[in-house]
Amino acid sequence: MQFLGSHLLSTEQLTLGDIDTVFQTARLLEPVARGEKVTRLLEGAVLANLFFEPSTRTRISFGSAFSRLGGRVLDTTGFEFSSFAKGESIYDTSRVISGYVDVMVVRHPRLGAVKEFAEASGVPVINGGDGPGEHPTQALLDLYTLHKELGRELHQFDGIRIALVGDLKYGRAVKSLARLLSLFKGITFHLVAPDELQMPSALVQHLQACGHQVLQTSDLATGLHGVQAVYSTRIQEERFPSPEDADRFRGSYSINRAVFEQHCQPGTVLMHPLPRDNRSEHCELNNDLNSHPQLAIFRQTDNGIPVRMALFALVMGVQDQITASLQDPRWALRRR
Amino acid sequence: MQFLGSHLLSTEQLTLGDIDTVFQTARLLEPVARGEKVTRLLEGAVLANLFFEPSTRTRISFGSAFSRLGGRVLDTTGFEFSSFAKGESIYDTSRVISGYVDVMVVRHPRLGAVKEFAEASGVPVINGGDGPGEHPTQALLDLYTLHKELGRELHQFDGIRIALVGDLKYGRAVKSLARLLSLFKGITFHLVAPDELQMPSALVQHLQACGHQVLQTSDLATGLHGVQAVYSTRIQEERFPSPEDADRFRGSYSINRAVFEQHCQPGTVLMHPLPRDNRSEHCELNNDLNSHPQLAIFRQTDNGIPVRMALFALVMGVQDQITASLQDPRWALRRR
Amino acid sequence: MQFLGSHLLSTEQLTLGDIDTVFQTARLLEPVARGEKVTRLLEGAVLANLFFEPSTRTRISFGSAFSRLGGRVLDTTGFEFSSFAKGESIYDTSRVISGYVDVMVVRHPRLGAVKEFAEASGVPVINGGDGPGEHPTQALLDLYTLHKELGRELHQFDGIRIALVGDLKYGRAVKSLARLLSLFKGITFHLVAPDELQMPSALVQHLQACGHQVLQTSDLATGLHGVQAVYSTRIQEERFPSPEDADRFRGSYSINRAVFEQHCQPGTVLMHPLPRDNRSEHCELNNDLNSHPQLAIFRQTDNGIPVRMALFALVMGVQDQITASLQDPRWALRRR
Repeated sequence: MQFLGSHLLSTEQLTLGDIDTVFQTARLLEPVARGEKVTRLLEGAVLANLFFEPSTRTRISFGSAFSRLGGRVLDTTGFEFSSFAKGESIYDTSRVISGYVDVMVVRHPRLGAVKEFAEASGVPVINGGDGPGEHPTQALLDLYTLHKELGRELHQFDGIRIALVGDLKYGRAVKSLARLLSLFKGITFHLVAPDELQMPSALVQHLQACGHQVLQTSDLATGLHGVQAVYSTRIQEERFPSPEDADRFRGSYSINRAVFEQHCQPGTVLMHPLPRDNRSEHCELNNDLNSHPQLAIFRQTDNGIPVRMALFALVMGVQDQITASLQDPRWALRRR
Repeated sequence: MQFLGSHLLSTEQLTLGDIDTVFQTARLLEPVARGEKVTRLLEGAVLANLFFEPSTRTRISFGSAFSRLGGRVLDTTGFEFSSFAKGESIYDTSRVISGYVDVMVVRHPRLGAVKEFAEASGVPVINGGDGPGEHPTQALLDLYTLHKELGRELHQFDGIRIALVGDLKYGRAVKSLARLLSLFKGITFHLVAPDELQMPSALVQHLQACGHQVLQTSDLATGLHGVQAVYSTRIQEERFPSPEDADRFRGSYSINRAVFEQHCQPGTVLMHPLPRDNRSEHCELNNDLNSHPQLAIFRQTDNGIPVRMALFALVMGVQDQITASLQDPRWALRRR
Repeated sequence: MQFLGSHLLSTEQLTLGDIDTVFQTARLLEPVARGEKVTRLLEGAVLANLFFEPSTRTRISFGSAFSRLGGRVLDTTGFEFSSFAKGESIYDTSRVISGYVDVMVVRHPRLGAVKEFAEASGVPVINGGDGPGEHPTQALLDLYTLHKELGRELHQFDGIRIALVGDLKYGRAVKSLARLLSLFKGITFHLVAPDELQMPSALVQHLQACGHQVLQTSDLATGLHGVQAVYSTRIQEERFPSPEDADRFRGSYSINRAVFEQHCQPGTVLMHPLPRDNRSEHCELNNDLNSHPQLAIFRQTDNGIPVRMALFALVMGVQDQITASLQDPRWALRRR
């Protein structure tokens, strides 16, 4: 895709070449993301960070990414939006706000709502999650994490073996990641879920049609065998007839240190889109793994910053100025 | 008025000379408002953007205007304000916050509340709307839009003919605009509304006492005849005995492409303070006009940025530094 | 304490030397706090200002302090936090957000919650108030105010006489101030409160064990006699069997101009952590004192800015760059 001035609504817009562009840009920006260098690339620019559905961490992640680039962030949070209540259309709302700012991030509970924002907007719109739809920046940061954790460049991804565990039916993040991975060659997917929550057959068929191996199992031990990475997801109580049913299922797909050491090969990367349900002993990735070097879940959220910075830089068209900006001696290695 | 350090609470503070000052300043700032140039005029300055009544777009407009000038924005939203609940007076709240920031924008549902903030504040307070009271920055951006759309300088406004349509009784924006227009000479006002929603007689008499022509009519076709601009407003359901009554009235004052082409002379400017009620086929300015070149409603909201920037620059006393700041070669024409 | 990279959770972390460091840093930053000078000390840095309990003014005070230093602020407000609702632990929330920003301010209704944030965070956490627990920055700004109002350096504090009035049992701010004052020598504390709201005996014994004089009284006139400063606090209705009881108590500890002139020596400093309950004629410090030169309550809130700026500068390790940054001729004395 042509990033400059474009909307990012779906992972389906992205080719492997686009992903490579995002990742190269993200790597350049890592010192800024970590607060070691300062840039004014987006000085004077304003982001409307519109969260019509609460998601504190995603909102802060986008806001921090834009701030780190030198821009200003204006937040809107909450379901209730004053003008919608007075009968205003998304078209009007989006067109008006797009006249105030340089870029919008929109999260909305309704599938397709972010696309409606994009259609009316005169500035780029980035999908921050639209209900059961897409969350493309999450999929990109997941893939970026996999690339860093496995120590593989994108052209070395072909042939890896990954387990996707938990709720593969409703989990937005895991489905988007599977779609991105389908762009490579010869991946082996272990789809580990109770039958009720297996991946939709259309997506399974798509993976197979792209030439990938798919192993579907409801048995965790089988699913973990021989993979290089595990992507675990939250099993939501409301998907089951009773809390007891939910808990039983959770217990079957919960990975703790003992399960990890028994069933995973050393060096297996453990990922999760978060939040985990830490209340339960059946937490998807148990707290007893918190200090385990293979638990990548917080490096995963950390990676959201350079990836989102890269997307902002690309849609705003400042990516070519990054290197020069970081060599400015006035700002080099400021802190600690 | 002397802008430096002053509050802006009401359109009644403004002379034609003041308006001219605001508009000249706004014109200088248009490249910054559009994101083409970057300025640090208000670097280090902080705005408290206090919205005790929700108004997402007005809040973002003020926030973006201050951000574009290089300042930082701290938002407060929602009816509930923690200290008020503990019995704190507006005097204390305002005096405390005025010690934290350089300027405040206050929106409040109660008439007169913003004036109370101003009386206690050590820094300028700008009225962002106080219930049925005033919304002076809306009136200024409406007039600025009229000036740009008609291609007339302020000294060329005398003698224009404008239709004000819809709810002229409760509509805050339209009444403030009428008051500003009363400063010129020989305007012809077409006041087009159902009898129940006609403009308050005190304001009509004020317009007449200033030497303006006033034509009051409940007939839309009559009202649109021969005007250079139409300012349409929302008719709110709650003003009528039943939703059906409201809808009947709305139907009578709704302008769509057919009505526009039949009754308005070519080149007539179509304005609206927004939000429109897009749900109804009787929307005040119908969606079938969205791509019409004479529909100025989004240029109107766009104009809110340079006008609000100008007001901030004036009350903060940096207007004389604008030109020099924009000639700084480091920031000229940065993007796209 | 070593400020760089540390959390500030409790006044008990602070020695007199630490307080002196904070105050010296705050004094350097006063011109920036007042908006007379501009600094970019924290350019590129991001603050997560997390208020899980509403406190608009404290939030704005921290936000403004960080903004004045050139940093960017991302706010979260409200009890409801999306991830907590999904069962996420404070550990995960804090660890994730600490990967997005450079420093966190956390206010939380539950005692100990802020400490949990700190334990998981990779960046400094400043306690913005944890329920009945601590509010260390309030205590520091109170002591800073006392130092400025009395015109005494810290080494001259020994031997002062201060009245603490009102709710000494539940009042978080007044207890923290007492703990800070206990670091000096030979203070005389007048603890003026109804028996039901007297200071907890453990804290009284601590003050005495440190060698201070403690006079406990329920009589306001006795308590005000001979002190150099009065620290008044709000008596909350909910502590009493009925509103009438509360009002009776409030009346007994309310200071107005007449009480002040009759019972306090000239030059006595009047302080209060705010908010006051201005609704009642029995307001702790009556509105008829608003223009009195000895009423220090708004200078007190003003002082929150340089004190909080100093803490940010210290935990971020930029305090040594302040002087050089303020001598930069490009930014000197910008406004008015």
